[in-house]
Formats: sequence, C-alpha cells, structure tokens
Amino acid sequence: MIPTRADYVAWRTVTTRWADDDVYGHMNNARYFELIDTAVNAHLLEATSLPIRSLPAIGIVAEVSCRYFREMGFPAPVDLGLVAEKVGTSSVVYRIGLFQGDTSDDQAACAEGRFVHVYVDNTEAGRRNDGSRAVVPVPDAIRRVASALLQEQPTTGSG
Amino acid sequence: MIPTRADYVAWRTVTTRWADDDVYGHMNNARYFELIDTAVNAHLLEATSLPIRSLPAIGIVAEVSCRYFREMGFPAPVDLGLVAEKVGTSSVVYRIGLFQGDTSDDQAACAEGRFVHVYVDNTEAGRRNDGSRAVVPVPDAIRRVASALLQEQPTTGSG
Amino acid sequence: MIPTRADYVAWRTVTTRWADDDVYGHMNNARYFELIDTAVNAHLLEATSLPIRSLPAIGIVAEVSCRYFREMGFPAPVDLGLVAEKVGTSSVVYRIGLFQGDTSDDQAACAEGRFVHVYVDNTEAGRRNDGSRAVVPVPDAIRRVASALLQEQPTTGSG
Amino acid sequence: MIPTRADYVAWRTVTTRWADDDVYGHMNNARYFELIDTAVNAHLLEATSLPIRSLPAIGIVAEVSCRYFREMGFPAPVDLGLVAEKVGTSSVVYRIGLFQGDTSDDQAACAEGRFVHVYVDNTEAGRRNDGSRAVVPVPDAIRRVASALLQEQPTTGSG
Repeated sequence: MIPTRADYVAWRTVTTRWADDDVYGHMNNARYFELIDTAVNAHLLEATSLPIRSLPAIGIVAEVSCRYFREMGFPAPVDLGLVAEKVGTSSVVYRIGLFQGDTSDDQAACAEGRFVHVYVDNTEAGRRNDGSRAVVPVPDAIRRVASALLQEQPTTGSG
Repeated sequence: MIPTRADYVAWRTVTTRWADDDVYGHMNNARYFELIDTAVNAHLLEATSLPIRSLPAIGIVAEVSCRYFREMGFPAPVDLGLVAEKVGTSSVVYRIGLFQGDTSDDQAACAEGRFVHVYVDNTEAGRRNDGSRAVVPVPDAIRRVASALLQEQPTTGSG
Repeated sequence: MIPTRADYVAWRTVTTRWADDDVYGHMNNARYFELIDTAVNAHLLEATSLPIRSLPAIGIVAEVSCRYFREMGFPAPVDLGLVAEKVGTSSVVYRIGLFQGDTSDDQAACAEGRFVHVYVDNTEAGRRNDGSRAVVPVPDAIRRVASALLQEQPTTGSG
Repeated sequence: MIPTRADYVAWRTVTTRWADDDVYGHMNNARYFELIDTAVNAHLLEATSLPIRSLPAIGIVAEVSCRYFREMGFPAPVDLGLVAEKVGTSSVVYRIGLFQGDTSDDQAACAEGRFVHVYVDNTEAGRRNDGSRAVVPVPDAIRRVASALLQEQPTTGSG
C-alpha cells in the first residue's frame, strides 16, 4: 500500500541538487536519507525553538529505512510529509513521505522513509567507558512536538 | 541480535572521508548508505566482470534499511561483509554488515544494512508511458554471483 | 574584497541539509560545490527551458573554486547570486555568491565560488579514442542565457 | 601544464563510491573536494598522531579549488599525491593531485586541487562576538608535517 499526501501531518519542502542524481539520472538511494533526516531535525528545531544539537539529551538514529515507489530527482523540489508512528519512553518513530510534483491529497508518495530516534545522554557523565551513551527519556519539549505528529485517526492503511 | 563477522560471505574494504562525520563527530546516517550500495555494486561489477550499468536489465533499489549498533567514523576504513538473504525471480535481498576496527570473527557489527535490488528493463522498449520500467528476471550472471553469497548454513541468528 | 548582494544578477534559493554540517558544526567545504553547480545548472535549465543534460553539446566543469569568508550552515536556506564573468567561444565563467541571513544589498557574501563550464561534443561521434570529448562552441541558447548574466556595469570591485 | 605523479611528496589512496558518479557517468565535481580534504586531514592526523579536530588551534578552509583534466569515477580507487606549496605563519597551502589507473611517475593527473588551511583559535576565548575566530599561528606539530611536504626542488613546472 503506497501512502498518499493525506497520510501525513506536517510538511517541509526541500530543494534538490544536481549531485543528487546518479548515473541512472534519478536521485541516488542514499540521498533520500539526507532529505529524511533533514525533515525530522528541521521540524524539531523549528517547532521546539531549541538548539537540539546541544541539549543534555540528543536523538541519535537507531534505525532508518526507505521504500522507493517511483523515481524522483533534480531539479524539482521535494515535499516531505511527517507523521509520528510512535512516541515511546526513550524513542520516537517517524514516517516521512517524499513527494514530487502533483500536490493533490490522493497523490501517491515517490518514497517513504521510517526513522527511529533514540535519546541518549549528551553530557560527559553519560559517556560510558566503551564510548556508548546511556539511553534517557525523550525530552519533554521533543515529546510535545513529536506527539503532535501522531496520526489521530488510525484508519489509513499506509506503513 | 547483533550480527558478527562470521555472518558474512564476501568482503570489501572502503575508506572513510572527513565529510562523512556530522556535527556529532560520527558518520552521518545517510552516509552509511553510500557505503552499502558501493559494496553491493562493486561486488557485482567485479564478480561478474560485466558493465552492470548498461546491461539490458539493471538493478534498481526498491527498499533499503540500516540498523545502527555502535558509532563509526573517519578516519579508519570500514570493512563491509556481504551475504544474500534471498535470490528471487526478479529481486535480490542483501544484508551488509559494517565493521570498523577489530577483525576477529566474533566481532559485532557497527551497523547492518539490508538492500533490495529489483531488476527492470533498461531498454527503450521497457520504458512505460508513465516513466516506470517493466520488472524482469534477475540476469543469469547476477544470479550466479548473488547465489554464491547465500549463507549456506542457516544457523546464525542475525537478521 | 568580499562581494556583496549588489554584485550579482540572478538569484536562486536552496535549502540546507543536516548532513551538510561537519564536525565543526558548519557546512563542509565540499558541500558548497553541490550548491554552486546546482545554482548554475538549475538556472540554465529554467532559463533555456531545454534538457541541458541531453543536448548535442554539454557543459563539463573544467575548473571550480570557492573562497570562504564567513561560516554558514544548516538549517537556514542559502541564497545564491549568479553573475557571468566571461562568455567565451567554448566556455562560460560564472561567479556565484553564497548568502545566508540578512538580505540587504550591501550584505557581504559568506563565500564566493567561481565555476568554469567548457562545452564538449556529447554525441558518439565526438568521443575520442582516449575517452575525451571534442571541445565545441557554447550552444546558442546557453550563450543567450549566460550573456544575460554578464555584469553590465563593470564598476564593482568584487572578484 | 598538467602535473604528474613526480610532482607530489606524500600519497594516500581512497576508494570511490557508486554515488560519486553523476548523471554523466563520472565523478561529480563536488565529490573531488571530499577526497581532497580527506587526503589533507588524514595525512595530518596520521603524521602528527594528534586529535587535530580538538586542538586549541584548528585549520579551517579559507579557499579551495580544483582543475579537472580527465574524467575519473567509480569503481577504481583514487591515489592522491600531496605537496605543500607554502607554509606560512598562520596558513598552509597544499596542492593535491588526483590519479586513477596508471602508476608510472610521468602519469598525468586527472585533476589537481589547491587547498588553503588557515589556523584559528578553537578555544571559547578565541570566539569573537560576531561568531568568527581569531587567526593564530600554525601549531608546531602541523608546521613540521606540512614543511616535510614542501617540494624541495623547485624545478617542476606544475601549478
């Protein structure tokens, strides 16, 4: 089931770059992930008005994936729809739809990403001997913003 | 369950780049996918000795994901282990373990990618009116190389 | 002499990405060149309304440089100003100013790129035995668009 | 005058990536700069054995350029030759030759980069109100390593 624009709650538009396209003339699969983590982080920055990179707890990527439905590429911009699949104790799962062109509600996504942020202790005290960092609760400000992205009506079949 | 070096069949080593690391001082999540598709495509190029980009059937990425277990980054090189999870009629599913540092067999991966190639008609005749391309069988030369990556002993718990 | 917004003729705005910033928290020097060649190519595509990648003559990059005056980075967008320094027989030299923030005319650039396109024969006949391609005149449609970017009043001290 | 392998003093080899190649089937011009700053920084890291990112003085890129002589791309590795053009009070200018294939001394470069590092105060005290940082002398350890890259016999015509 390919998600449509109607499946997402918040939106961001990003521009594409000449170098996004690979030898086949369309956006390289790795480049989609630059757009995906930009959409999540830019939304968090803007909606929380906080310097999210330097908070005591920061979100690190535990898992990310993308399903590709239709080719996409330079030069048109890309609209990214955001929806939260789950807001847990220490993690948030986002789904991100990527669209290019047609802006009607029933427009099918070119691709859909799924992005899992886990919050870890960003203070020196939280750094373990092996270099890893302690998992901590999602900060309140992030939780509020992420919860507002939850799809209230669970009737869509996407994802 | 985090996979170890013992879970993979073929290997490639790639160098890391200064620009791979993001503001947190470790490799950005999108950059892992540049390494993942490089490992798959370089292995196919080398093992088939064919110009895989210009064959009548080409593999396009239908889905890709990565789970991140431990931070990794510039300047050390990255060893990528390849294993085929499935060789289907028109698609191949690879799992790619990313390792940095310790080279013992029981070394846990820093990350594991999963990469799905679907083969499509690369000739003009195979291009549909909507720009998409017809799905075709995995070419024989690719099938042979991919099948050699299947994990013969299904006793590992990874993936 | 650092150029200002007043030194450029045409404008494009691009969005920045989380992965643009490196370990020092600002845009990595290589990323500026993704913005620079995007600005040139997107302007040519739009102003000529031609599929510039598949014309009989294509512009390849012979030389590019960037001077960095002030840090720039995610998440704000970047305004790129374009001016043609020279429109030659077979080549065009562009200068591209990169700006972030303040939009007044006397705003100093964060960086300035200089980008040299040389036109080569994109047909099979134009491919030499050693793989290189014959240099050809700038196509008329490109010449018209590039010439419109020439700074008519040579009184600015920039560059 | 195209430089040859004989014009460089120290060497590093890096691997190429599938995503390095753009729609024309060769390495995108911006990607060369990922290789160039990797060669410089990896050499400094290794030759000084110091954590160069967290020293009191860090090198920031003031200017960088690249001249492209011959196409280059995935999948072959790239050899980068390093030579110091100038070691000044607060800055170092490197030239970096990029080679692919033939390893004979008189092999012409595919491209040559020129990379200018200026050293700035990386301590909190060195941060000015406008966000810029005070220029400081090149650290001794860096100066020793960079000076060893100076071309002793100024008889080559390159650069």
